[in-house]
Amino acid sequence: MTTIHPIDIILHKRDGLALTDAEIHALIRAIVDRTTEKQLITDAQIASFLMAVFQRGLNPQELATLTSAMRTSGDTFDAAPLHTFTIDKHSTGGVGDKTSLLIAPILAAAGLASPTPAGIPGICVPMISGRSLGHTGGTLDKLETIPGFNTQLNLTQLADVLKKCGAALIGQTPRIVPADRILYGLRDHTGTVESPFLITASIMSKKLAEDLNALVLDVKVGSGAFMPTYEKSRLLAELMVQTGEASGTRTVALLTSMDEPLGRFSGNWVEVWECIDIMRATHKETRHPMSRDIIQLSNILAGWMLHLAGRADTPEAGASLSDEILLSGEAYKAWLRIVTAQGGDTAIFMDPAAHHKSTATRTITAPHSGYLASMDCKQVGWAVQRLGAGRTKPGDPVSAHAGIEMHAKLGDRLEANQPLITLFAEDPSLLDEPEDMLRKTLQISATPPQLQPLIHEVVKKPN
Amino acid sequence: MTTIHPIDIILHKRDGLALTDAEIHALIRAIVDRTTEKQLITDAQIASFLMAVFQRGLNPQELATLTSAMRTSGDTFDAAPLHTFTIDKHSTGGVGDKTSLLIAPILAAAGLASPTPAGIPGICVPMISGRSLGHTGGTLDKLETIPGFNTQLNLTQLADVLKKCGAALIGQTPRIVPADRILYGLRDHTGTVESPFLITASIMSKKLAEDLNALVLDVKVGSGAFMPTYEKSRLLAELMVQTGEASGTRTVALLTSMDEPLGRFSGNWVEVWECIDIMRATHKETRHPMSRDIIQLSNILAGWMLHLAGRADTPEAGASLSDEILLSGEAYKAWLRIVTAQGGDTAIFMDPAAHHKSTATRTITAPHSGYLASMDCKQVGWAVQRLGAGRTKPGDPVSAHAGIEMHAKLGDRLEANQPLITLFAEDPSLLDEPEDMLRKTLQISATPPQLQPLIHEVVKKPN
Repeated sequence: MTTIHPIDIILHKRDGLALTDAEIHALIRAIVDRTTEKQLITDAQIASFLMAVFQRGLNPQELATLTSAMRTSGDTFDAAPLHTFTIDKHSTGGVGDKTSLLIAPILAAAGLASPTPAGIPGICVPMISGRSLGHTGGTLDKLETIPGFNTQLNLTQLADVLKKCGAALIGQTPRIVPADRILYGLRDHTGTVESPFLITASIMSKKLAEDLNALVLDVKVGSGAFMPTYEKSRLLAELMVQTGEASGTRTVALLTSMDEPLGRFSGNWVEVWECIDIMRATHKETRHPMSRDIIQLSNILAGWMLHLAGRADTPEAGASLSDEILLSGEAYKAWLRIVTAQGGDTAIFMDPAAHHKSTATRTITAPHSGYLASMDCKQVGWAVQRLGAGRTKPGDPVSAHAGIEMHAKLGDRLEANQPLITLFAEDPSLLDEPEDMLRKTLQISATPPQLQPLIHEVVKKPN
Repeated sequence: MTTIHPIDIILHKRDGLALTDAEIHALIRAIVDRTTEKQLITDAQIASFLMAVFQRGLNPQELATLTSAMRTSGDTFDAAPLHTFTIDKHSTGGVGDKTSLLIAPILAAAGLASPTPAGIPGICVPMISGRSLGHTGGTLDKLETIPGFNTQLNLTQLADVLKKCGAALIGQTPRIVPADRILYGLRDHTGTVESPFLITASIMSKKLAEDLNALVLDVKVGSGAFMPTYEKSRLLAELMVQTGEASGTRTVALLTSMDEPLGRFSGNWVEVWECIDIMRATHKETRHPMSRDIIQLSNILAGWMLHLAGRADTPEAGASLSDEILLSGEAYKAWLRIVTAQGGDTAIFMDPAAHHKSTATRTITAPHSGYLASMDCKQVGWAVQRLGAGRTKPGDPVSAHAGIEMHAKLGDRLEANQPLITLFAEDPSLLDEPEDMLRKTLQISATPPQLQPLIHEVVKKPN
């Protein structure tokens, strides 16, 4: 076999040539091997390659191969021994987006209700999640506000929890997709984050390492989305669907609105609290009105998953089934089972409001009457971060109890001095800047605004 | 003043925005400062920036500013106290290209013949040259075959030699254009060498650090040229002329043929030997016929320089003057003066052939009769390198006596078994591979080939 030198791979991509499978695998091997004894490629070479990809893009074959090479750069989950249907969902990140905390139990409940011959849940959700970064929240940070909850399971422990519960919510280990950790660490400071090709390879390599039969992607659009335009979100959705399908995983992407925080709360414990309230409500009327959109979005995403898992003829029928599972209390039972299996103390779920310990609270009221017309949702996310719920750089601690409670949704009619938003922080000095950010971005108008649909578009492989 | 962060400069260039002067200066400052106490920018960031420039290019203002920021990143020569006309020539690199060794003495002779009121030569050539790399030769390696010749002068010593001799031939010091050394070190292994913008900034920052009134550029085209196509050579010539003129230096570029080695010899001492023979020939008939093209090219380049220096009304008249200076022996006298001033032993010039000490020699003859039709001149350059005259990586030693002697020029009629080329190496084992390379690339045809002109085009600022 001829040796493939990193410099030649850089030159080919630089000049717009398509890379061969052998070149891509050699590159990723060189990137991962450098963490051990060999120095086959320098940071500068990787950065140069990343910028060349940013400028030149990747064709579908290259993207599928890069994703596959990254996926197999470390440990991968092997679902075959479970003989179950594995499925997950992934979101590109939002504000108040707690769908994972609802969807994992909903799917687990459906899986527990239809076990395999071996007694394993017929649907399993091996959900590997991330942490808060930038203006978006992170599932792991929310879960870790539950005393004892352990997100650091290894792959054997993951299989054990799945067998018992039908879902597990864990963090990435250093041994899963190590190539992505190296690449992301470099992309972050070399101006190569926003490439839809590199984002696709990063997300999909990690999701496909879960050995999935199917995957539903929630790609955000709007002022709180990571991608700056609808078109770029759509391109990302297409690339991810194409890459998932190329690896044999049924993949569907929904383009969903992120123009305001989803649900009632945004933060860490407050979002767990909201989910407990939702899962414990056995009648639609007892649901908190501010949770309307997050329930709807969760049902739609879970509906697609139930459809792909063969439990519903259509995504719409799946969404109805999802809502039934919620209202039946089965999702809540599955949730308690998962939390217990991962070491969490479920006693605090009896009175979640009592577990909320922010020492400083401030409520912004409507300065005048009118309609809640618009906001820069990204700014709202940054305000949540500044309150202490998010982090400035990876590894920073986050506050369990900081966050916001929304008292109105876009389009709601407001009277002057009506509560609009409440801020929570662990220290009163942390309230001023976020208050100012929120006051500036929340716009009240005399006439009702034009509202965006919650779901803009579904992207899937042509039949 | 707001701080400019390297990441923002990368993002701007990545997205095709024009960089401001402040951004470019901040970038170069960060690159140079990192060699001292501060780590303001990483190798990976510089590499990412270089690839972004490779893909996006630089507009004339950006290129002029980048060149200027690099030029002033370290020490620069200050010619003002000399009150003379400073001029230099630069070649993009060739095989057997020994024009520097002829042109410096020719211009020096003209300068010595027309001193300033202070008694300093009226033309000074502060020539900072490079070393052999890849398939091309290097002026410093040739000069250092002269016993005692010191190319490592500082800028004060440079001024002293110029005052005495009108020309000096020295190497770059670590303190001249340090930004280029850092950038070039990274470009070499990150696939960003061949950018005409980065090549222009690299060459012109070093040449303009010589504080020149005028500069003549010899941009090679053809099979032995660094740039792969005529169009790319032309673009490089245009960018260099534009950048030189933007800095106030009169700049002219000649696109010249590099389809076969220039002159009789290619190597190190053998090229000095050829120049001595040329400078000592007082009649055209006593010149070696194989030196015809190198004499012609040197006269044309020197002619442009004499014209720009006001010593000839036209470049053509300058070329005639140059040839007169050669045949008069004045160039040789200037040469002896320069070599002596730089510590070299001129005694060996009495019998240059005797100083040639290759221990292994082999002559390739024409396999059949016909016309010398073509060769890959780059391959000939690599053969010279493999014989020992060049180096594989910077810092490697080179052989003083390795090289080749051409016995025919393109278009010459050959009889079967007539000598075509002679190889010299310090060890017979080094002859085989170059012999094979040369045999493969030298083509003899039944009909005379179409010959390229020596000068293809002159690129200068529109009047």
